[in-house]
Amino acid sequence: MGIDLESVYRDLHTHPELGFAETRTAQVAAGHLRDLGLTVTTGIGGTGVVGVLENGEGPVVALRADMDGLPVEERTGLGYASTVRAVGPDGTDVPVMHACGHDVHVTCLLGAVEDLVTRRGTWSGTLVAVVQPAEELVAGAQAMVDDGLVERFPKPDVVLGQHVAPLPAGIVGLRPGPTMAGSDSVTVTFHGRGGHGSRPQTTVDPLLTACHAVVRLQSIVSRESEPGEIVVVSVGAIHAGSADNVVPAEATLSINVRTVSDKSRTRVLTAVRRIVEAEAAAAGMTTPPTVVESKHAPATINDEAATARVRATFVETFGEQAVIDPGTVTGSEDVGAIATAAGAPLVFWFFGGADPAAFAAAAAAGTLDSDIPSNHSPFFAPVVQPTLDVGVAALSAAAREWFGR
Amino acid sequence: MGIDLESVYRDLHTHPELGFAETRTAQVAAGHLRDLGLTVTTGIGGTGVVGVLENGEGPVVALRADMDGLPVEERTGLGYASTVRAVGPDGTDVPVMHACGHDVHVTCLLGAVEDLVTRRGTWSGTLVAVVQPAEELVAGAQAMVDDGLVERFPKPDVVLGQHVAPLPAGIVGLRPGPTMAGSDSVTVTFHGRGGHGSRPQTTVDPLLTACHAVVRLQSIVSRESEPGEIVVVSVGAIHAGSADNVVPAEATLSINVRTVSDKSRTRVLTAVRRIVEAEAAAAGMTTPPTVVESKHAPATINDEAATARVRATFVETFGEQAVIDPGTVTGSEDVGAIATAAGAPLVFWFFGGADPAAFAAAAAAGTLDSDIPSNHSPFFAPVVQPTLDVGVAALSAAAREWFGR
Amino acid sequence: MGIDLESVYRDLHTHPELGFAETRTAQVAAGHLRDLGLTVTTGIGGTGVVGVLENGEGPVVALRADMDGLPVEERTGLGYASTVRAVGPDGTDVPVMHACGHDVHVTCLLGAVEDLVTRRGTWSGTLVAVVQPAEELVAGAQAMVDDGLVERFPKPDVVLGQHVAPLPAGIVGLRPGPTMAGSDSVTVTFHGRGGHGSRPQTTVDPLLTACHAVVRLQSIVSRESEPGEIVVVSVGAIHAGSADNVVPAEATLSINVRTVSDKSRTRVLTAVRRIVEAEAAAAGMTTPPTVVESKHAPATINDEAATARVRATFVETFGEQAVIDPGTVTGSEDVGAIATAAGAPLVFWFFGGADPAAFAAAAAAGTLDSDIPSNHSPFFAPVVQPTLDVGVAALSAAAREWFGR
Amino acid sequence: MGIDLESVYRDLHTHPELGFAETRTAQVAAGHLRDLGLTVTTGIGGTGVVGVLENGEGPVVALRADMDGLPVEERTGLGYASTVRAVGPDGTDVPVMHACGHDVHVTCLLGAVEDLVTRRGTWSGTLVAVVQPAEELVAGAQAMVDDGLVERFPKPDVVLGQHVAPLPAGIVGLRPGPTMAGSDSVTVTFHGRGGHGSRPQTTVDPLLTACHAVVRLQSIVSRESEPGEIVVVSVGAIHAGSADNVVPAEATLSINVRTVSDKSRTRVLTAVRRIVEAEAAAAGMTTPPTVVESKHAPATINDEAATARVRATFVETFGEQAVIDPGTVTGSEDVGAIATAAGAPLVFWFFGGADPAAFAAAAAAGTLDSDIPSNHSPFFAPVVQPTLDVGVAALSAAAREWFGR
Repeated sequence: MGIDLESVYRDLHTHPELGFAETRTAQVAAGHLRDLGLTVTTGIGGTGVVGVLENGEGPVVALRADMDGLPVEERTGLGYASTVRAVGPDGTDVPVMHACGHDVHVTCLLGAVEDLVTRRGTWSGTLVAVVQPAEELVAGAQAMVDDGLVERFPKPDVVLGQHVAPLPAGIVGLRPGPTMAGSDSVTVTFHGRGGHGSRPQTTVDPLLTACHAVVRLQSIVSRESEPGEIVVVSVGAIHAGSADNVVPAEATLSINVRTVSDKSRTRVLTAVRRIVEAEAAAAGMTTPPTVVESKHAPATINDEAATARVRATFVETFGEQAVIDPGTVTGSEDVGAIATAAGAPLVFWFFGGADPAAFAAAAAAGTLDSDIPSNHSPFFAPVVQPTLDVGVAALSAAAREWFGR
Repeated sequence: MGIDLESVYRDLHTHPELGFAETRTAQVAAGHLRDLGLTVTTGIGGTGVVGVLENGEGPVVALRADMDGLPVEERTGLGYASTVRAVGPDGTDVPVMHACGHDVHVTCLLGAVEDLVTRRGTWSGTLVAVVQPAEELVAGAQAMVDDGLVERFPKPDVVLGQHVAPLPAGIVGLRPGPTMAGSDSVTVTFHGRGGHGSRPQTTVDPLLTACHAVVRLQSIVSRESEPGEIVVVSVGAIHAGSADNVVPAEATLSINVRTVSDKSRTRVLTAVRRIVEAEAAAAGMTTPPTVVESKHAPATINDEAATARVRATFVETFGEQAVIDPGTVTGSEDVGAIATAAGAPLVFWFFGGADPAAFAAAAAAGTLDSDIPSNHSPFFAPVVQPTLDVGVAALSAAAREWFGR
Repeated sequence: MGIDLESVYRDLHTHPELGFAETRTAQVAAGHLRDLGLTVTTGIGGTGVVGVLENGEGPVVALRADMDGLPVEERTGLGYASTVRAVGPDGTDVPVMHACGHDVHVTCLLGAVEDLVTRRGTWSGTLVAVVQPAEELVAGAQAMVDDGLVERFPKPDVVLGQHVAPLPAGIVGLRPGPTMAGSDSVTVTFHGRGGHGSRPQTTVDPLLTACHAVVRLQSIVSRESEPGEIVVVSVGAIHAGSADNVVPAEATLSINVRTVSDKSRTRVLTAVRRIVEAEAAAAGMTTPPTVVESKHAPATINDEAATARVRATFVETFGEQAVIDPGTVTGSEDVGAIATAAGAPLVFWFFGGADPAAFAAAAAAGTLDSDIPSNHSPFFAPVVQPTLDVGVAALSAAAREWFGR
Repeated sequence: MGIDLESVYRDLHTHPELGFAETRTAQVAAGHLRDLGLTVTTGIGGTGVVGVLENGEGPVVALRADMDGLPVEERTGLGYASTVRAVGPDGTDVPVMHACGHDVHVTCLLGAVEDLVTRRGTWSGTLVAVVQPAEELVAGAQAMVDDGLVERFPKPDVVLGQHVAPLPAGIVGLRPGPTMAGSDSVTVTFHGRGGHGSRPQTTVDPLLTACHAVVRLQSIVSRESEPGEIVVVSVGAIHAGSADNVVPAEATLSINVRTVSDKSRTRVLTAVRRIVEAEAAAAGMTTPPTVVESKHAPATINDEAATARVRATFVETFGEQAVIDPGTVTGSEDVGAIATAAGAPLVFWFFGGADPAAFAAAAAAGTLDSDIPSNHSPFFAPVVQPTLDVGVAALSAAAREWFGR
């Protein structure tokens, strides 16, 4: 009896789907949730699934799992590895892999719901299971919100979510406050005046200007941010020109900004704009650079009080030594959009997926970075157990902290 | 009787051909040279043509014209404008235009040969007419040399050539010593370590390094070159990365260097290498950057004594006011390869193709740069006369300076 | 009966002395310690004072206060403000002020010793009171160690110390691990080749090289450090040249580095050296830059277990809300030298000296930075109470955590 | 009979005087001029001397020599070396040396006047001998002009002057058009916000900004100037800060600009201002930098026609091989101010002072820069002859070109 979670996990792993194309995954999740007695609605925010279980008076607790895969070619060598290919966002054929562990998340959500259903006599309240699309596109949570997630369904009093991480399986990590950084993409195009490379004086060189801007942007982190503050300004791409002997007319930068507060975010984005505009002015450009901000993921901020409650229950469940503060991670998440829409506290945590023995050996050898594949790696392969068991137990325990035990 | 030069010119202009594909142009030139009594060989260095006229004792004088067009879409609106398209070097379909006036050069060479043939009783020596392919590719002169230009045919005692320029028609410009700059292409690839944009500390950022290098390269001209020395270091292209949130593993610069002496060239290329290697070291890269030097066109250096002779005959032919010193031009040419191979002095000059009245008006208005189309412009359109007459007279007069008059 | 701490404090404040010149302060402290029954030795490490009280079996607890003032002209307007002037390190006459609150520290140490003496029947162990000179010179702790602090006197089992800070009076702040950053001074001199400013090509420009180095150094923080890691690389001074038209032969940078771990410190200092050497190479300098490291203050690292004990006793003493985590402060301290010499755990904490009402108003107005004077400001003026009471209670309570209560 | 020029020269060399303090030198010159029969006025523009000889109908020819020494400590080891010290502009005691050869200039002027007086029967016109102070301060010519040089004395129809140079003695060098560059001094002060080096986020770092500006200024020469155009932008001094751990509030640059035309000068000074203002904006400074332009010496531009006449007479006097084109020199002069004030053509030339054999040996060894001391070197020591003879002959011959022979 009960769901064979390991089989579910391997099946999902073998059949990854890209963001907003998770039809099969949604169907699998919706089927199990229905079997468990929840009222299930599909197609929320594209491919999202919502399952509701009303179990008497009490708080509304949302448990959220994301379900999309990544355009990565799996190289784990696992028996259940993915060989899936799909049409990518730009129309080309791409490989697909669950390289970020969202298959683990969906499986653990099903396990936790099953556990809560099994114990339903011991708690009361309303459970909302949220299976979200397109987290990797920083778009699925907002899509579900825009599609009525907190109006058409019971509005959560707390939003709980989790992410498998390259920590030893058995470990859970959480912290109050900033948990994951917010991310912004900024594209800057400098408009110079092109010309022959042998006559620079007739040009306004956008390539040199872009280089000065890249160099100048470093000071946002090195001089304008508080030491110890999490701020990243990475220029991931620069493109200008096509021949050595022609000064191009334009140069483009693709900038990624990571911050952990609105204040910091505003300050950094303002500084980026200030610097690129000033560098264009230094070059004598008459047209200011075009600055386009896109793809904003807010920082994932855990509620202080709610996190203290979850932490306490984790300590009780797993033991003091198993509960760590992972620090603020500079990666980004979109789960916060759901909590923001609900006006509810968020608690989001990490749980280990790495083989503990391998982790310990790598840590001892100082080779963690190379030996333990991180999320998004083609080699990312959580050990099945105790990863699933811990993920299920964590989600269930956290929910019961609100539902009463 | 005689060649109708204006018709020849318009016909060549209407039928431009890309470098090493000048089969029709070569045929036209070869036909006229044969008609004039020269011994003509085709297919030298690909599509090159050599015509020889032995006219008694005396020096061997090579008159060189280049004949290739450019992948530019003509926008002159002339009745005889080109609408030709051809397969470009990268296999794509490209427009073709005589945007650099090589059609003028071929026409004037035919006119000058005709003039010399007409006067053959007044001079003695050996005339070698060289119709060269692929000057724009900085490859045709060397190709003809490699195919035996100075061994299979009489070895020149002097090499004479000319280029139509955005000066008023009627003007000729020449100078002893450096006439056109040499050009070198240098491609630099920095080898960093890529990673996620949110974790710069795990990367060695090649994009930032490339930007520092571009900025640092400026000092070759600003600090390491003598004020007034012609040195250009242009970075025409920079490419790195494809996404804002990923630090790429490599970054590539395409650099163009212009110099007017071997000493200067060696110094600048050494400095480029020194700087990019040091910037890689500053970044902590363990692999030095890959530096590839390609496409070298030597500086075009006019022989002092031979140029003085040509200058004197030009002053006699056109008047003192019509002969100017155009300064050293930072554009490049490959005619020097022929003189170098022959061990003979080179004299290369410019002659005006711009409408004198339009030139004067633009000069008065300070709008020369915008109103008088330069070589390589889609609007480049020399006035037919007196451009052709001057080009013919200049080439013939210069040759007779050696042949005796 | 008892020491009139407020009078002691005002007296010390009125009579500040520079580092290693604290003869009067040492005398005052030694007098009170003797009066309290301690065995007092003066002149340890210059002007340092050590008082020992053996009170039965038990641990040796060192309580450390620093006692030097700063060359700052007091502008507090207080009735007991300093008007002292002294001969500074460079031989000039300078104003002196207790602008960093070391007068508070000495006073609180006397109060805590008095408290412990009063309660001597309730605890057992050995109390070592350390009154340290020249903390501002990052030299006094090491001077006392070098003078036998941990050999000539009972070797501490724990070292406790505290610092008054611009927090509301009544608040204490402490954290396990990195509490204050380590500080290193690095002086870099580039050796170029000078010459006339009109002939840069004859020079190797050290000024431009120094500027490139300053710019390049930014990437140590922006790219090579983990986001959220406390690393500061500040270039505080640059000097080169004396006339606009002469390229100087040398340029000098004064660099300050702040880090919170040995690993980080080594990494950053190595990167500074790597970058300045590479920039010299980029400039074509044949002599590498001279790099001199000086004035090293290690990071102040609180022992995890010992800090947990102190924190617990503070919570008990002052209440949960009064005990905060101040984060790691980028300022530096030399108290760690004593703990390192003793091989004992260190616990160092902050306690508030700001008027709570003024603090709250400034916080509400967002004007904390301008309204609440920080340490080293000429306006720095802790409120006398409850600052002294809290400082005394904190030091005493922390000591009793080891002595037993 | 006649002036013993070598003695005069050695005497002047032994007794150098700083700009505007040339009282002894002026007295010597005035004495000889009076002895030669000229009407002499002293104290023009401070210490300047004007001698006039009216010799019938004809043009007014001004012969100008400058007479000030430099604050350089002589190290020539000559028997007549200077050991003079004087009070420098900043009030300190400085050594003084004729390190720029102005003693040669005064001597040659006296010799040329004597020669012209001797030949007075062979020419007619008005000779104006101008002995100018403070050329090194770029101030003396203008001071004489401001004091009525071209109103109180016959207004010149041509201004002639010369400078001894590190060319072989016996050589004269001149060229039409730009002969020496103009020079401008620009001081830039960036106004940031200082603070503790451990808290860069509270500062606006003027030191980093100044470094970015220095780096950015390079592009004026490398990208905004025509290849081959004489433009120099040298930052000769940068100063900011006094301690490694304090971010200073200000940073200052001393910039020297060399150009050879008004158009170029305006363009470059505008670009300097544009760049430093933009860099301040990039840093987020609310106050723009203070930009002070001072010490302007205009370019020394030789009149084309007048120079052709002088060149012809030099070829006649010294032979074709002795007359060279030295190119445009990037050093600066203020003689142009006199010609500008008079509205008269200027001809200014160089004549060699180096020992020809030593010069030839150094040229052969490629050690000219190190072996032949340049002007302003403490080793600058022209050979007395034929330097003086050539300087006298050149000045006299040039004057007679106008006076008739």
